[in-house]
Amino acid sequence: MTVNILFSDSPERWATYEMPLRRALTKAGIEADLRTDFAPEDVDYIVYAPSSPLQDFTPYTRAKAVLNLWAGVENVVGNETLKIPLARMVDDGLTRGMVEWVAGHVLRHHLNIDFALNRQDGTWTRHVPPLARDRRVTILGLGELGRACGQALAGLGFPVTGWSRSQKDVPGMTCLSGDAGLKQALARADIAVLLLPQTPETENVLNAETLALMPKGAVIINPGRGPLIDDAALLAALDSGQIGHATLDVFRVEPLPADHPYWAHPHVTVTPHIASETRPDTAAEVVAENVRRGEAGLPFVHVVDRKLGY
Amino acid sequence: MTVNILFSDSPERWATYEMPLRRALTKAGIEADLRTDFAPEDVDYIVYAPSSPLQDFTPYTRAKAVLNLWAGVENVVGNETLKIPLARMVDDGLTRGMVEWVAGHVLRHHLNIDFALNRQDGTWTRHVPPLARDRRVTILGLGELGRACGQALAGLGFPVTGWSRSQKDVPGMTCLSGDAGLKQALARADIAVLLLPQTPETENVLNAETLALMPKGAVIINPGRGPLIDDAALLAALDSGQIGHATLDVFRVEPLPADHPYWAHPHVTVTPHIASETRPDTAAEVVAENVRRGEAGLPFVHVVDRKLGY
Repeated sequence: MTVNILFSDSPERWATYEMPLRRALTKAGIEADLRTDFAPEDVDYIVYAPSSPLQDFTPYTRAKAVLNLWAGVENVVGNETLKIPLARMVDDGLTRGMVEWVAGHVLRHHLNIDFALNRQDGTWTRHVPPLARDRRVTILGLGELGRACGQALAGLGFPVTGWSRSQKDVPGMTCLSGDAGLKQALARADIAVLLLPQTPETENVLNAETLALMPKGAVIINPGRGPLIDDAALLAALDSGQIGHATLDVFRVEPLPADHPYWAHPHVTVTPHIASETRPDTAAEVVAENVRRGEAGLPFVHVVDRKLGY
Repeated sequence: MTVNILFSDSPERWATYEMPLRRALTKAGIEADLRTDFAPEDVDYIVYAPSSPLQDFTPYTRAKAVLNLWAGVENVVGNETLKIPLARMVDDGLTRGMVEWVAGHVLRHHLNIDFALNRQDGTWTRHVPPLARDRRVTILGLGELGRACGQALAGLGFPVTGWSRSQKDVPGMTCLSGDAGLKQALARADIAVLLLPQTPETENVLNAETLALMPKGAVIINPGRGPLIDDAALLAALDSGQIGHATLDVFRVEPLPADHPYWAHPHVTVTPHIASETRPDTAAEVVAENVRRGEAGLPFVHVVDRKLGY
């Protein structure tokens, strides 16, 4: 029987995703009618991006699931018209890309590569960095991405502490949890990597008080979500030297406005939300797998807990 | 019985190494007289740097071994007055430092971090890099350092090819050897890392002919030895765009003269021989282990094959 799948994202994304999705659905043995328009009552699955114009799910009376193309769900999880399962994207390509970006920027700060790049003036100034084993990294957030990044950094020799709301256990890392654990995790963070989901509890997790707990001159790397950081507090901590550098990939408003102080700050590196990108080929396979599961009456993978928000 | 150990390097190095060496010798159970001067005929072991004023080993009639503090031995291996075993430094700290430097610069080029650092002007230009699995890295040289770097890069997801003069087998990497293997290894090198020893055979291994075999726009990273590269050929390849960037840590003359064209070239990054640094604590333990072995009548570790030159 033909399964009707609505693709609800921008025309650019449709151009990127159509062929990978068709290939993945065929490979999964699904006879699908994949389109960007349907009468709502005919739709079986919605492949979705939270930026889509589709914000009222009420007319989609037959739909079995919303299959998000993004890892982040904060702009859809609170949608009260959404009554069916919502699956997050957990794409191996996205995870690998994040690990590479995080490892690259942690090593950049660890080795002080910026100093070398700014010192191409003929002066031979040797600063040998310490070994990774003497540079403590803290990962805030131990979901799929935080775990993968933490384990890759541990593999490179960094002592890694991971923090999450509820206690977790990840091989190769010291895991802390709760409010007391957060203080401990920040107190030992020569470099902190933010990979928490965006929820009311995690908003401004880095603020004046928590930034002051970090070792003086610590580095912050945020490929997670913009609202995890109180921007005014971070700018003040950068100006005072409490924080040595911040490399930020995500912001409360994107694109980051050209007049935002982050752009011009000498101790801030802005990257334009490139740390983690869903990869069409691998993401399409995740979507197809959930359609296959739905049709086979199996539970969906990566279903969002609406109460927790992720 | 007291063992007489001559430390033959600069006074600065003596200040750095004296205490780590004393600690390591005591830990190894060796009763040592460690000094920077002895009557040559009283010396049992020479802890040595090739830059030392000691270049005539003839008077050291009782010495059992020269224990090099450096990994590189090209400036001592040809010394015809040296008739006793010469041991290279194989320091775990040095290996770890090299792995971190190489991983950091490979990821820097892979992620095009320089582009981000140069684009802090308020323009939001998204270039998402490919995944590591689509970026081929070739390591020239499969000694201790080459193997460790190759395996770390493979762990980060890069497809790694390793090349060495004689065929080797390293888990996680494709190993090639010989002249035909070198051509294959370079033809697939989106990024090439040079970790060969300096011998008459490896001098100018990268020259006009071999640079032309690489994919257009390839990146060269040289933390090995300066003479591995024909500098004029590399500059020409950079100017033509055949080579996209070179990050160079070692040079034929060090410090690299301020007027050398590498400093000013927009597609060259010079780092001042910092990729790999012997770490006093770990290096001292390697020296002490060889003294222990010599006194116990056991074979030394990391002995240089004078004929091969490493």
